[in-house]
Amino acid sequence: MTAAANNSSRPGDGDSVGIVETKFATLFSEASPLKFLNGATLAPICVAYETYGTLNERRDNAVYVCHALTGDAHAAGKHAAEDEKPGWWDGLIGPNKALDTNKYFVICSNVLGGCQGTTGPGSLNNETNTRYCLDFPFLTVSDIVSVHSELVRYLGIEKLLAVVGGSLGGMQVLDWTVRFPDQVRAAVVLASAPKLAAQGIAFNAVGRRAIYADAGFLNGKYYESEGPRYGLALARMVAHITYLSEDSIELKFGRRLQDSDRFAFEMQKETEFQIESYLHYQGKRFVQRFDANSYLYLTRAMDYFDLSEGHATLADAVRNVQARFFVASYDTDWLFPTSQSKELVSALLQVGKHVSYVELACPFGHDSFLIDLGPLTDLISPFLEQTLISPKLSQFPTARCSQFHMSKSRYQLPDLSVQLVDDLIIRHIDKGSSVIDLGCGDGRLMQRLSGEMNCNVVGIDVELGNVAAVMRRGLPVVAADLNKGLADIPSDTFDFAVLSQTLQQVQHPKLLLKEMLRVAKRGLVVVPNFGHWRVRYEVLRRGRTPITHALPYEWHESPNLHFMSMRDFRELMQSIGLRIVKERPIINGRSVDQAWAANLRADSAFYLLERTSSTTSEPA
Amino acid sequence: MTAAANNSSRPGDGDSVGIVETKFATLFSEASPLKFLNGATLAPICVAYETYGTLNERRDNAVYVCHALTGDAHAAGKHAAEDEKPGWWDGLIGPNKALDTNKYFVICSNVLGGCQGTTGPGSLNNETNTRYCLDFPFLTVSDIVSVHSELVRYLGIEKLLAVVGGSLGGMQVLDWTVRFPDQVRAAVVLASAPKLAAQGIAFNAVGRRAIYADAGFLNGKYYESEGPRYGLALARMVAHITYLSEDSIELKFGRRLQDSDRFAFEMQKETEFQIESYLHYQGKRFVQRFDANSYLYLTRAMDYFDLSEGHATLADAVRNVQARFFVASYDTDWLFPTSQSKELVSALLQVGKHVSYVELACPFGHDSFLIDLGPLTDLISPFLEQTLISPKLSQFPTARCSQFHMSKSRYQLPDLSVQLVDDLIIRHIDKGSSVIDLGCGDGRLMQRLSGEMNCNVVGIDVELGNVAAVMRRGLPVVAADLNKGLADIPSDTFDFAVLSQTLQQVQHPKLLLKEMLRVAKRGLVVVPNFGHWRVRYEVLRRGRTPITHALPYEWHESPNLHFMSMRDFRELMQSIGLRIVKERPIINGRSVDQAWAANLRADSAFYLLERTSSTTSEPA
Repeated sequence: MTAAANNSSRPGDGDSVGIVETKFATLFSEASPLKFLNGATLAPICVAYETYGTLNERRDNAVYVCHALTGDAHAAGKHAAEDEKPGWWDGLIGPNKALDTNKYFVICSNVLGGCQGTTGPGSLNNETNTRYCLDFPFLTVSDIVSVHSELVRYLGIEKLLAVVGGSLGGMQVLDWTVRFPDQVRAAVVLASAPKLAAQGIAFNAVGRRAIYADAGFLNGKYYESEGPRYGLALARMVAHITYLSEDSIELKFGRRLQDSDRFAFEMQKETEFQIESYLHYQGKRFVQRFDANSYLYLTRAMDYFDLSEGHATLADAVRNVQARFFVASYDTDWLFPTSQSKELVSALLQVGKHVSYVELACPFGHDSFLIDLGPLTDLISPFLEQTLISPKLSQFPTARCSQFHMSKSRYQLPDLSVQLVDDLIIRHIDKGSSVIDLGCGDGRLMQRLSGEMNCNVVGIDVELGNVAAVMRRGLPVVAADLNKGLADIPSDTFDFAVLSQTLQQVQHPKLLLKEMLRVAKRGLVVVPNFGHWRVRYEVLRRGRTPITHALPYEWHESPNLHFMSMRDFRELMQSIGLRIVKERPIINGRSVDQAWAANLRADSAFYLLERTSSTTSEPA
Repeated sequence: MTAAANNSSRPGDGDSVGIVETKFATLFSEASPLKFLNGATLAPICVAYETYGTLNERRDNAVYVCHALTGDAHAAGKHAAEDEKPGWWDGLIGPNKALDTNKYFVICSNVLGGCQGTTGPGSLNNETNTRYCLDFPFLTVSDIVSVHSELVRYLGIEKLLAVVGGSLGGMQVLDWTVRFPDQVRAAVVLASAPKLAAQGIAFNAVGRRAIYADAGFLNGKYYESEGPRYGLALARMVAHITYLSEDSIELKFGRRLQDSDRFAFEMQKETEFQIESYLHYQGKRFVQRFDANSYLYLTRAMDYFDLSEGHATLADAVRNVQARFFVASYDTDWLFPTSQSKELVSALLQVGKHVSYVELACPFGHDSFLIDLGPLTDLISPFLEQTLISPKLSQFPTARCSQFHMSKSRYQLPDLSVQLVDDLIIRHIDKGSSVIDLGCGDGRLMQRLSGEMNCNVVGIDVELGNVAAVMRRGLPVVAADLNKGLADIPSDTFDFAVLSQTLQQVQHPKLLLKEMLRVAKRGLVVVPNFGHWRVRYEVLRRGRTPITHALPYEWHESPNLHFMSMRDFRELMQSIGLRIVKERPIINGRSVDQAWAANLRADSAFYLLERTSSTTSEPA
């Protein structure tokens, strides 16, 4: 092991794993070769890999990092003290970092078909004593993962704590959880997708065309000559644009000129603008470190990736995964947009898997997962910690969460009432049922449902601070805005949906109630009662928008957008075809069965709702 | 003239201008050559152009169409009856279409530097009797427009009714309005920008690199050989991706395979997926119709385009334009995103120009302006009609507007009260002042302000139906959502801002009021009074959300998100540092100066607001 554990380091002080070295393993044999998805076989296979941290005695703390298209095994630390730059994910891997080498044993290997130490098209074919070139077997993400999986066994590890990757790395993570479900306890999928979309295939096709069209390509047998350096550089230029966001390009380069503050008016000048010069530089530099044949093979592997291939639906494909998931996408990533991550999350929810999801705001486009490591650290840290100590549920830990804003409780109930409302909800939920908590806050109720009732529970909240808080409880949570409906939640997924003290804050309460009973069989709703006498008294006496204990906001700042009374609520339920199975006014901190003038006396009211035969579970 | 006018045709029945022919004009002479922006001169210049419709006697009905990067002069009709396809914008140009050839004389010419009839790098240099190739002068959008402008004079037209163009065509329109302000009465700028952004330069740079790197390029002197066909095809492939939206690619191609329903697992196969096959086909076809040297020149002209070049700000650049503007962008266009059109609109507003703007929803990305012609027709038609009959303001015309939804009046006042409120507002506005009407509806009040008060008025509304209605009145209107603030409106642009019966519908009233008095010196606000006795009575008696004449909605459907009384409003003004210069309760359809128990009796209230010294006009 090469990592120097440093137990005295403080969080976030940029501690490094120190000097590391790339190691090599020879896997597979002629007797037991790697079988490619297309039927070809290959053995032996040399794998370049690095490890950081120490494998513990139980051998249950190993985290495997899968690199993206042009990455390599050198993910953290430096090979020599004088190296200018550390490994490509050094900000995420190290003592007290997200992949904390004080706790975890981190492995990263170069992919099959690559050109940085692992066997690929540029390697020597021992049978012919020439390089493989285009005779290398056609490879897929599955073939890459088969080699990873074998390396794990070679290192004497039966089960990984987690597999982590972004982009093409995320695709490897997904394939791994499906094809080797026993080998992975947790999966972190960043800026990735369950399949490559047509636009991604299109850009890859352009890159390959540039390589094929280069006169230096020589049908892949260019190793004794200069090779398709124009074509490979061009492929990199176009790919590089797709890794950046429009805004980040504009911010970094804008229309600034490279050598002058005046236009040159010269057709032959290719690097007049800074952005041109930058792209040309990126292209040239890439040619020095990457092999064109590997680029062809690996982009094709990416094109072919479709997790649902061979299954009726994506949900079917992930039905047998055992890992819990953390999925993150970036708002400015247009190569792997949020919609593709949501498709994955939706499928995982549909088959009852443990999945947490966030869309992170970051200006750096697809590259964000390599750059903006603070938010990732705040989310991946509790996710891995909780996986390590699961299945037993942890107490709410004290870990800091500095990156995010946690919403204040926007509907203020006395502590007694909070407890009361939670008790009331829990009493109406069956043990072991599946529950979605809409507007789950920090997961207080979720933890009781999971702990006391053994429910399979998932939360929805719009605030990332709340998402992180729920993840610190080891529970799954999806960041989403209830104002935008529940489109990403499949129909009939849950036994119960909870909507506690949230309905009055959404823009379209009718839509949300319908959606709630599309995704769940029964709904539990708690709402403040606008018919309460104190509210009426304020309006009557002072002629102004009421501010009461339960409605504590000035009119112009209120997150409470809709005021309804118990009567209003009952009429709405009738009009949208939902049945009120039970109604419980909450009066002076107590829930009561029947009450004189409930509409006048109740602070809030609890409802148990059901679909009627006329209610459909089609998406609204 | 080639157009066959057909007066009996109905709108939208796909009438054509019929059989047309491309004509040629020889412009400029050695004595008076074209002077390029970089100092070079050239003469004579041959221009290929077409015209449709008839120039009227006053010669004031000519509309010039500027084509995009790879377009040509053949915009409408067919060259021969057996042609498979008509001109590239045939859906927009013809009898009863947006550019109605029954009314207008439409001109379209191939650009300077092009390869479809107008002099360009592939043309013969008479001095040397060889083709220009890369010796052709370095050209800019300005040089292209100088030739257009000369063609207009050649056709005996002093002033164009309008100049219309999308993408690079829109850049020509912009340059034209700035450099020849006297020559253009109206400008239509579609899916374009006041400068090419860095991402656009980046994609152009990749395309040029592909051409330069092609061994067949021969430094531009390839006309006797095959030429850089791989490079040009590659340039087209990458550009083509940028013209489509992610969604439209996904919808049209997805991951479907070209020849089989099974993967081929073959590295050498370049067209396995349909999207690959499509791009390769587009590339090949493009090589047959376009010249690589023209591609180099025209993309460079695009890169160089920056309307504000030589001016301190973009607003300075457009200070002297005389044209009125209609600007449209598309929500799925990521090559020329909405933000770039908004920058232009903001600059035009800042210097008091007549500008209407919409973002249209269309799935086809940058290409939308060539495809989705219905909404364009509904907006361009009234824009041109009103320009033709201006300066006299027209009556509200009866023209249909089938494409868009017009919002119902969401705050219901009796007709008497509408008139009353409008009168009250008009009484507080100075003659000849500049006014912005926030939530302008169909422009009823705007027309009175413009007609009776000679105000320079612009409307803001979120509904495209309302935008079209205002444009049919010949008035400028910007489509925007008040819930998102007024970020695109420059500070201190208007004397007055009107916010009539709208405040209660926005999500953040405080923010909007601040913004209102950032963009204008004074604010005029009319709001419903939540303190009215009928509201109080409803709450008291029935314990439910009040539904009254002024607040006619069920609680869950109401667009009225915030309820405030007159007292609430006064206190808010104080807290955000705005001064109430005047308050007028509106009681029983009459505005009164003073009233007993106004907070109890007023349906609505009118306020005239001013900044105090503590209020800043920085964007909120």
